[in-house]
Amino acid sequence: MNDTPPDVSLRDFQHLIRDMYLEKDVARGIDGTFMWLMEEVGELAAALREGTPQEQAAEFADVLAWLTTIANGGGVDLAAAVGEKYGAGGPGCGLLVCTCKDSEKP
Amino acid sequence: MNDTPPDVSLRDFQHLIRDMYLEKDVARGIDGTFMWLMEEVGELAAALREGTPQEQAAEFADVLAWLTTIANGGGVDLAAAVGEKYGAGGPGCGLLVCTCKDSEKP
Repeated sequence: MNDTPPDVSLRDFQHLIRDMYLEKDVARGIDGTFMWLMEEVGELAAALREGTPQEQAAEFADVLAWLTTIANGGGVDLAAAVGEKYGAGGPGCGLLVCTCKDSEKP
Repeated sequence: MNDTPPDVSLRDFQHLIRDMYLEKDVARGIDGTFMWLMEEVGELAAALREGTPQEQAAEFADVLAWLTTIANGGGVDLAAAVGEKYGAGGPGCGLLVCTCKDSEKP
């Protein structure tokens, strides 16, 4: 028996969020949608400080959803974006296990 | 011929980021890692205002990577988190195409 929750592909998740929210996001515009992302980022920070694991998970989901909806508005394919930047190792040192100095942007 | 870039599953991406960065992220701690996320969010805002499509895509990838690395530090499975919150329709109205009022959190 496998109790691992289902996985989801980044592109499928982006399509799901598009189907759910694109019409409203386009009407709101990227600036207004970014404000919602910022609110969720604040809630994530609060949850990381004093939330339950369930609350933290929900806030991660919300931040990811708002980031994704902004990507939809901007026509960015997140799967392609992360594949381009992280698919072949870290963008700094280029190694799968990062060896950049901590003071550098990893 | 199919030119669509490869997709990636959220769990596989989280594992990739864990393999690349977990050791450094644990040493830095969630607070310090959150600062890096904030820096990337700022860069995303700048790219959305005046960046090229390629620059925008790279900043989306960076924000997603930092969000993911914080999830790793907090032991949150992003695939499970989004499945729990968005897998069965929007968290507000519960419909696949959101009908919440714009003034409400969708």
